[in-house]
Amino acid sequence: MKIYLSKSAILQGVQTVQRAVPLKSPMLTLQSILLTALDNRITFAATDMEIGIRYSHAAEIEEEGSVLLPAKLLFEIIRRLPEDIIECESKGRNFILRYGDADFTINGYDPEEYPEIGGFIPTTTMTLPGKILKKFIQQVYFASKIDEESGNIFSGILLEIQGENLTLAATDTHRMAVNTGNFSTTGRNPGGNVVELVPKTKQSWIIPNKSMMEISRLLRNDDEVTIEGHRESARINFKFSDTEVLTRLINGQYPNYKQVIPNQSGNTIIFTRTVLLEAVERAALLSKDAYLKTSILRFQIEDGQIIINQAAEMGKIFEKIPIEYSGNTMIVTFNLRYIIDALKNIETEKVSMEIASPYSPCIFRPYESEEDENYISLVLPLRH
Amino acid sequence: MKIYLSKSAILQGVQTVQRAVPLKSPMLTLQSILLTALDNRITFAATDMEIGIRYSHAAEIEEEGSVLLPAKLLFEIIRRLPEDIIECESKGRNFILRYGDADFTINGYDPEEYPEIGGFIPTTTMTLPGKILKKFIQQVYFASKIDEESGNIFSGILLEIQGENLTLAATDTHRMAVNTGNFSTTGRNPGGNVVELVPKTKQSWIIPNKSMMEISRLLRNDDEVTIEGHRESARINFKFSDTEVLTRLINGQYPNYKQVIPNQSGNTIIFTRTVLLEAVERAALLSKDAYLKTSILRFQIEDGQIIINQAAEMGKIFEKIPIEYSGNTMIVTFNLRYIIDALKNIETEKVSMEIASPYSPCIFRPYESEEDENYISLVLPLRH
Repeated sequence: MKIYLSKSAILQGVQTVQRAVPLKSPMLTLQSILLTALDNRITFAATDMEIGIRYSHAAEIEEEGSVLLPAKLLFEIIRRLPEDIIECESKGRNFILRYGDADFTINGYDPEEYPEIGGFIPTTTMTLPGKILKKFIQQVYFASKIDEESGNIFSGILLEIQGENLTLAATDTHRMAVNTGNFSTTGRNPGGNVVELVPKTKQSWIIPNKSMMEISRLLRNDDEVTIEGHRESARINFKFSDTEVLTRLINGQYPNYKQVIPNQSGNTIIFTRTVLLEAVERAALLSKDAYLKTSILRFQIEDGQIIINQAAEMGKIFEKIPIEYSGNTMIVTFNLRYIIDALKNIETEKVSMEIASPYSPCIFRPYESEEDENYISLVLPLRH
Repeated sequence: MKIYLSKSAILQGVQTVQRAVPLKSPMLTLQSILLTALDNRITFAATDMEIGIRYSHAAEIEEEGSVLLPAKLLFEIIRRLPEDIIECESKGRNFILRYGDADFTINGYDPEEYPEIGGFIPTTTMTLPGKILKKFIQQVYFASKIDEESGNIFSGILLEIQGENLTLAATDTHRMAVNTGNFSTTGRNPGGNVVELVPKTKQSWIIPNKSMMEISRLLRNDDEVTIEGHRESARINFKFSDTEVLTRLINGQYPNYKQVIPNQSGNTIIFTRTVLLEAVERAALLSKDAYLKTSILRFQIEDGQIIINQAAEMGKIFEKIPIEYSGNTMIVTFNLRYIIDALKNIETEKVSMEIASPYSPCIFRPYESEEDENYISLVLPLRH
């Protein structure tokens, strides 16, 4: 291959796909980026066999072809090149970058050794603004199991399309976050033509949370993103601007998130998010566990205020947080980390908290938010 | 003690001194900050027994006294307090912070258990602008041995006062950086009175590079800094605005840096710093050693250009860097890391490189810089 491309365009391609490159792999060829010059476009591709990212860009192509290059060296040299048009030429497996009075050669691998990232014809496609999907992902991600071995359904995020409704949900069985929105759905009829359709039956996929986080990182606010799913494929596809992300799915039956949400809201408490969050974060300082996984938070909910009153080896805290509430006094105990996570992932300053009794699920919602009216974040209290 | 102080003033004090708190220590009381309320001032102090930092601030003091508090918890709670006046009161060893409708108690230690940071009456004092000392430190620091066990003289920076000249020098025996400037010197006569004096004999101290780096971090550009040294003390003192840094010295005989500098400059090469630096950084990518400690750089110096032409397992590089030079062709081999460090620590864009022969010390200087006319950075070439 022989192409001419600006340094910034190559860098953009490398940076977009390199997050799919595994940090460690027994296969050296997997720690690589595949460059393909074809039909006046240069395509960058990388995969760790779970997620695959492809980025394609118009380029001046003198000779078509492909090369497989070590990802780290490619990134490091490209970002250190002068801002200029770079002449890129392959000689066998090697790749020569020419800039100014200089050239740099990267010794590459055989492109044939690289695994192919397969495609499929979708049965459902939905298009929505990139910034909405980005927000949905960020709003539910924290409630999934992080750093869990992939394959565990709770390390996944549920994506569900029913009619024109898109739902993202995540839970680690102790807490849950869900958001739903209304977007346009299209599909293909058996003849392969795109048709507007409202699938009668719900379609859902469990997507590794790591993949979802990568998608949210890659999405820019002005992107339009198209989700392409297939009823029976083991993969799902996200397409936006010049980028395509294909991810494996997690097999299994996701719990019915709707069953967890109480029908009756019980007592409603309205408070200012950052005021409560800051008090909880101060209380967290008394925990010996830096990750707060086992730290306990005790709310004494009274007429007009929540009282936090806790002591530990290191010291003690006493705080009164003003709230809108006029019910009975109630003492509720939570995992401290879950309350911090829930409060951090709500965008509005006013938040409502609904809880029927000290042992029933507690629901946090953005208060009077048009944009996030369907968002809920649920935390199960601890027995005390 | 009982004092009233703004959150930001407490935070400033804690942040200033906490860099002296050891990250690990068998003595819990050493991982603490000592607060002393006396004479309408609050003083924060911390030490790891090598460096001691004191910061003092005017405060409304209702009751004098002192407390010894765990540094990490103190910092974490202070930065999470509301922006407000905080009422601070000690009860025995404990320290109560009152803010709004809340209070937070830190369980502290016995202040008597904290080591005293001693003082001395200086024999030499020199005052100079903080930003100059800050720059001097940054200009020589890299040439000292970093992460070496403290006590090794090459993990120190030489500070020398002779007449009104201040010199900072550092070397790891393979390279060296030195800067000298002219500032006002005062001293005390045997009666203890401050007098302007030009000590006939040179006074010098070897200061741990870690301490010097902390001083450079603490110095603000508009500070005036006073260095207080004593001919026979094991410590040296730096005072600026509300801060005082006292550091242990390293015992030993520092090599005579002047002897290393060649009298005859030989060939002079003038080049654009970033152009050469970027080429060298690209060549560094071919090194297997991520820290570049053993990486070799070969300069072919010719009429009008330096050629870098190197090959490795990963690839190869060929670059021509334009220079002002019209002498004979010369091949010089360096440790690659040393050239990167030397070039990164010069401020001017034009740099001169003086080298008599491929095996004689190579000197880098800022070219035609009034501000840094005395700065030199020397690198010994490798035998090849």
